Amino acid sequence: MNKIKIGIIGGAGYTAGELLRILIHHPMAEIVFVHSKSNSGNKIYDVHDDLFGDTNLVFSNHFHNEVDVVFLCVAHGESKELVKQFDNSIKIIDLSQDFRLISDGNSFVYGLPELNREVIKIAQHVANPGCFATAIQLALLPLAEKKLLQSDVHITCITGSTGAGQSLSETSHFSWRQNNLSVYKAFTHQHLAEIGQSIVFAQPDFHHSINMIPQRGSFTRGIMASMYLTCEKSLDDIQNIFEKKYEKHPFVFVSKKNIHLKQVVNTNKCLLYLEKQDDKLLIVSIIDNLLKGASGQAVQNMNLLFGLEETMGLKLKPSAF
Amino acid sequence: MNKIKIGIIGGAGYTAGELLRILIHHPMAEIVFVHSKSNSGNKIYDVHDDLFGDTNLVFSNHFHNEVDVVFLCVAHGESKELVKQFDNSIKIIDLSQDFRLISDGNSFVYGLPELNREVIKIAQHVANPGCFATAIQLALLPLAEKKLLQSDVHITCITGSTGAGQSLSETSHFSWRQNNLSVYKAFTHQHLAEIGQSIVFAQPDFHHSINMIPQRGSFTRGIMASMYLTCEKSLDDIQNIFEKKYEKHPFVFVSKKNIHLKQVVNTNKCLLYLEKQDDKLLIVSIIDNLLKGASGQAVQNMNLLFGLEETMGLKLKPSAF
Amino acid sequence: MNKIKIGIIGGAGYTAGELLRILIHHPMAEIVFVHSKSNSGNKIYDVHDDLFGDTNLVFSNHFHNEVDVVFLCVAHGESKELVKQFDNSIKIIDLSQDFRLISDGNSFVYGLPELNREVIKIAQHVANPGCFATAIQLALLPLAEKKLLQSDVHITCITGSTGAGQSLSETSHFSWRQNNLSVYKAFTHQHLAEIGQSIVFAQPDFHHSINMIPQRGSFTRGIMASMYLTCEKSLDDIQNIFEKKYEKHPFVFVSKKNIHLKQVVNTNKCLLYLEKQDDKLLIVSIIDNLLKGASGQAVQNMNLLFGLEETMGLKLKPSAF
Amino acid sequence: MNKIKIGIIGGAGYTAGELLRILIHHPMAEIVFVHSKSNSGNKIYDVHDDLFGDTNLVFSNHFHNEVDVVFLCVAHGESKELVKQFDNSIKIIDLSQDFRLISDGNSFVYGLPELNREVIKIAQHVANPGCFATAIQLALLPLAEKKLLQSDVHITCITGSTGAGQSLSETSHFSWRQNNLSVYKAFTHQHLAEIGQSIVFAQPDFHHSINMIPQRGSFTRGIMASMYLTCEKSLDDIQNIFEKKYEKHPFVFVSKKNIHLKQVVNTNKCLLYLEKQDDKLLIVSIIDNLLKGASGQAVQNMNLLFGLEETMGLKLKPSAF
Repeated sequence: MNKIKIGIIGGAGYTAGELLRILIHHPMAEIVFVHSKSNSGNKIYDVHDDLFGDTNLVFSNHFHNEVDVVFLCVAHGESKELVKQFDNSIKIIDLSQDFRLISDGNSFVYGLPELNREVIKIAQHVANPGCFATAIQLALLPLAEKKLLQSDVHITCITGSTGAGQSLSETSHFSWRQNNLSVYKAFTHQHLAEIGQSIVFAQPDFHHSINMIPQRGSFTRGIMASMYLTCEKSLDDIQNIFEKKYEKHPFVFVSKKNIHLKQVVNTNKCLLYLEKQDDKLLIVSIIDNLLKGASGQAVQNMNLLFGLEETMGLKLKPSAF
Repeated sequence: MNKIKIGIIGGAGYTAGELLRILIHHPMAEIVFVHSKSNSGNKIYDVHDDLFGDTNLVFSNHFHNEVDVVFLCVAHGESKELVKQFDNSIKIIDLSQDFRLISDGNSFVYGLPELNREVIKIAQHVANPGCFATAIQLALLPLAEKKLLQSDVHITCITGSTGAGQSLSETSHFSWRQNNLSVYKAFTHQHLAEIGQSIVFAQPDFHHSINMIPQRGSFTRGIMASMYLTCEKSLDDIQNIFEKKYEKHPFVFVSKKNIHLKQVVNTNKCLLYLEKQDDKLLIVSIIDNLLKGASGQAVQNMNLLFGLEETMGLKLKPSAF
Repeated sequence: MNKIKIGIIGGAGYTAGELLRILIHHPMAEIVFVHSKSNSGNKIYDVHDDLFGDTNLVFSNHFHNEVDVVFLCVAHGESKELVKQFDNSIKIIDLSQDFRLISDGNSFVYGLPELNREVIKIAQHVANPGCFATAIQLALLPLAEKKLLQSDVHITCITGSTGAGQSLSETSHFSWRQNNLSVYKAFTHQHLAEIGQSIVFAQPDFHHSINMIPQRGSFTRGIMASMYLTCEKSLDDIQNIFEKKYEKHPFVFVSKKNIHLKQVVNTNKCLLYLEKQDDKLLIVSIIDNLLKGASGQAVQNMNLLFGLEETMGLKLKPSAF
Repeated sequence: MNKIKIGIIGGAGYTAGELLRILIHHPMAEIVFVHSKSNSGNKIYDVHDDLFGDTNLVFSNHFHNEVDVVFLCVAHGESKELVKQFDNSIKIIDLSQDFRLISDGNSFVYGLPELNREVIKIAQHVANPGCFATAIQLALLPLAEKKLLQSDVHITCITGSTGAGQSLSETSHFSWRQNNLSVYKAFTHQHLAEIGQSIVFAQPDFHHSINMIPQRGSFTRGIMASMYLTCEKSLDDIQNIFEKKYEKHPFVFVSKKNIHLKQVVNTNKCLLYLEKQDDKLLIVSIIDNLLKGASGQAVQNMNLLFGLEETMGLKLKPSAF
């Protein structure tokens, strides 16, 4: 089988960097171009400097159609324009939020393999989910699929600084963020739309509130979403439901011991932990926001699009510490 | 006026250290003894080594009654025994949780000045509140006093590592905790008891759940408690209620701008921030767990017990960064 | 005695913020204006938001001569212009590097109290030392004054992120700096000039190299300078020399136990530690870069200029953790 | 070719954990036993919990000779005893310091591939180098091999907390180490012996001092060693020497741009950066202490011992942030 010819648009950002870190060691990947307006002519490692010694690729200032798949790593809003510039025969994986919501004329499949694997396999265009949305959906979908979301859901989700990308701002300044914590976009985070869409798809009668309090944490990588709801089932029953749901999904695991964020950092895994207190069910979900929450999941989707082993190139050494 | 003669029991722990950092610059404090079983004979700065150059005090292996007030900085459970060893004439401020709950024979006043200032002023024994309990009560009491707690309350509260004291454990290991995050004691944290006691005291008809999800954060000092509930009042009305409640309390402030934890680190302040989304009211409350959440509040209580200016010795320079 | 009327220029930066944190609790300080071009009309706490609740001062867009002293907290190069706009009767403390080096027409006294206390007391204009320069000079001056600098000096000095101010840059981005470390300006840091000037002043025959390797550390506040040189004296003799040198200086202390940076964070102290290995003398020097390395020392200088107790307003609670 | 049968002794420590993270994805590795006295019967992921979902291996309480290679991940001093318990036919890679120094009866080859690759290939026993020793030797050996070490060498090397292993101590406590920095073992670190041995091996006439100031940094993974010496050669000449030295070594790279620690974290790479100021040559060397400084290098040695591609299993995704 020939290698997959790959183009990347928006190559200088964090998600593109993470994509490159995965793809340069992916046995079936051939990177054909890495497009960046601002860095054209520079070496990849001039921007993603941890790749010094690993690749001599250069950013290019144009892109073309001689590829099998294109990853769009651009700002929200830009993907809509870019898509028009590629032939219909080229597969597209969009990491922005432009195509995540179902609408007339939107040909993109929502790329959460644990929800849509079979459809992704035959898709042409994939909208890669948001980072918070991934962590939260993987925690709630097993229940939704059993129509067990029968109360409001109360979520606090805390993200590392890489979730905000490489742009400089007060809240990404080290002197500000080190040892700090803050709430933002309470109840209104844009990922609620895609979460709600998937929940209702799985459990059409769902009519409760999903309350989401995002926070900025004092760490670089990772998302921890902790959430609770009312649930009459026993912990055993719920654990069975979760384990069954994920037994054939290679990146999601249900831990019977309490979990902590660094168990998944620098991996494509999601770990889930369940606990019951009276009729309250607590679910904790952890992912690496740049991997399962972005570029790792994008490669997982690429593997599915091209009939490869779903885990190919994604058996990553955790950083652990 | 004579200086206040002070004894400290359990002098080698984090809360005693913080107490010493405050008291050695307090204009009315005279530290008579600092008791520590394990460190008897050592200099204070051998243990609290940031005090090198500030004091030559020595830990002693016995305590006595020639003081005006004793601070108990011992493990939960030990205060009950210690109290018996002091004359009735000596005022006691207990930082453990032994005397926080009302019960037969418990002579201690619950030492949250924003709830009990007038009673503290005439008290003999004060039970200093817990750190989470302080942050959460200051956020909820203004509503409870107006009988406005009319729904479940959903709280996530994240603490710095100093909240767990100086004992060594896996979750206090730097290699583990740096860049990490985890949930513990979900719905069951021991501070719920004192929170509930104060809420019901202020709003006797309160009958909803207070759901509390504590988390270990990747920082050393501080607590951020974010919580929400259903409330029909307008944001303006609620802000007025909070401002009125705290206008005569020198350490609690209501911010109209969003807040972040480091605004209060190394101070005795509590900052509150309010936001409404439809009928949901979000309250964010931040304190330094070792100051307003422990030793700072203990000195505030001492000031009240002895008729001093409530802020004496507590106008601390924030560390800010 | 009347309070000292104070003006601050460049009020929105880190050093001005730190100055305000000290001065609002300084018993003899009256802040008359805080000038900021970019923030005129805003509250001080809009920028230095940890001061919310502590002050209602407002930034002004002009400055004037109705003050006793002006602090210049502006970028290097700007002080030279500003100085001309103040009457000769007004004392000036400049935190930039514009006036630190002796030259024709430079009326500023180098404001290191441990070197120049008596001259500062009668000065009109003070050039506040640089942060690295402070840490290093306090380590070397006791030797220089005894003509004991008889070899090259090898220095590594590591600074927290606040040393680079509040401007946003790649190396101040949290995602970059957290858990990171890097060397910059090896052998060429601009503070070498003022260090050399003081050393030669104290030991005119000094003719060796001072090698300085500055590094960016993964922390917010503080500087640790570790350095070594050849020295024939015994450790006891050297310790005596250091202790004698600093016995009347209230902020510098010689520790016989090894030290660590957080012993001085959020204080105006400098701690020194000495160790000998054969004929090599190691000196470790720690300060808070924003306090003894900048604004704390500026207030120390103000105290000297106005005949106040040198420590007034500077007995700060360490943050310790 | 058959897979390599592997035994690991001391399986619960940090270096064994890191070894497991690499070996479970190594295409030629078959882990036969992971020995741990304290954890016998437990799952690997009970201790190294980031491996949950990756392996179901269990710690065993005995080891045997049915393996091709044994990794000793035990405390210094224990390897000497353990070695006797394995057949001569079994290859041994020792991560302790027991066999790093040449002595009568020591059959171990010093396992720095960039110094000893050809000898390692035919060795039976390999002594894996120390972490500081690796970073420093890779910086100095290119010069030593050209007899260019003609002055004292001045080294500051800063290590992350994982360098001290998983034992709990004051300096590994999060509340202590976060935002902190300290010097230890100045001039006397035990790695100086192996560094000196290699330097003299490469440049027998070397007779200068190697001054080494180790420090504890506020980060978890990595070592940065910065050092300088006197060197008359031009920067171009030296860069050529370094590039030539390492052109056939797949993990060591010479950067013409300044470097920072996180470029190598979670990789087996060493990056070197050179700079000249007059006759002073600065060399900065960075590695991940647990990988190129321990377990990664151990696998590199295993690859050499068994005639595999040197990089097999070691093309790791950097964590970058």
